[in-house]
Amino acid sequence: MTQNSIMTVSPEQFLAHWQGHRALTRRVIEAFPEDKLFSYSIGGMRPFAVMVKELIAIAVPGAKGLATDIWEEFDENVDLGNSKAEILYHWDQATEDINYWWSQIPMERFQEDLVAFGLYKNRGYCTLLYFIDNEIHHRGQAYAYLRSLGIEPPSFWER
Amino acid sequence: MTQNSIMTVSPEQFLAHWQGHRALTRRVIEAFPEDKLFSYSIGGMRPFAVMVKELIAIAVPGAKGLATDIWEEFDENVDLGNSKAEILYHWDQATEDINYWWSQIPMERFQEDLVAFGLYKNRGYCTLLYFIDNEIHHRGQAYAYLRSLGIEPPSFWER
Repeated sequence: MTQNSIMTVSPEQFLAHWQGHRALTRRVIEAFPEDKLFSYSIGGMRPFAVMVKELIAIAVPGAKGLATDIWEEFDENVDLGNSKAEILYHWDQATEDINYWWSQIPMERFQEDLVAFGLYKNRGYCTLLYFIDNEIHHRGQAYAYLRSLGIEPPSFWER
Repeated sequence: MTQNSIMTVSPEQFLAHWQGHRALTRRVIEAFPEDKLFSYSIGGMRPFAVMVKELIAIAVPGAKGLATDIWEEFDENVDLGNSKAEILYHWDQATEDINYWWSQIPMERFQEDLVAFGLYKNRGYCTLLYFIDNEIHHRGQAYAYLRSLGIEPPSFWER
């Protein structure tokens, strides 16, 4: 595709960027001791398992929304089970589902004004970057959780 | 510019995205009590002032590198003074300098293979996203610092 040569980032590159971050977040989930994943907190913030619930609630409905502009109501109360294994299962399902929807995102969507989840008005690319940035933000908090537990987190630069 | 209509993100939009994040990081710096900015830490991580040093050491040399492909050696030991006021002064200088270099980034740079700071080989857009993601990551840790100090951080979604 010739137009890629004058693009800052192609849709495929954005997907690889997000999935690279998601692979790192998966390793951060794995790094938590089972009980700390669901219970450990600093300064009244949510345990990382609850933050991960938010990330999963955003990911597939978000990718589907970018592809179709059909937005479900945002629902953080998805049932991911009560074990690390079940959370990782849902994480990996989301990885597949994001890939499924991605190829259906029309090129013009990135510059369209969207109302993500029926609530958040923004350009398409801003909506996408918000999903990714929100994940990096909460994962940064999880790094602080791990460090304060004396656990070395995975390297930030490995995706 | 017609080609914007088929772009995921324009260079100008990337600049606004980064500067929006930088404006939030500035508010996070401001939210720290003066002494805690330089001394407070969780789990052996660096105080936020030292992380900010890293962010400033990346920002302008990074923008200049994207514009010119001239890369200075990475130097985290920049002297930012020992007060919040001096750090904010350097932060605001960097804001201006990033804007100065930005308009000189050639469109094709985003898809070129670069060796940022003479060390980090990556596509141009990956290099840029790394600068931004690294800032979000460390700022997420600063949110944990603030929360554990009982301080409400600025809202993540306000840029």
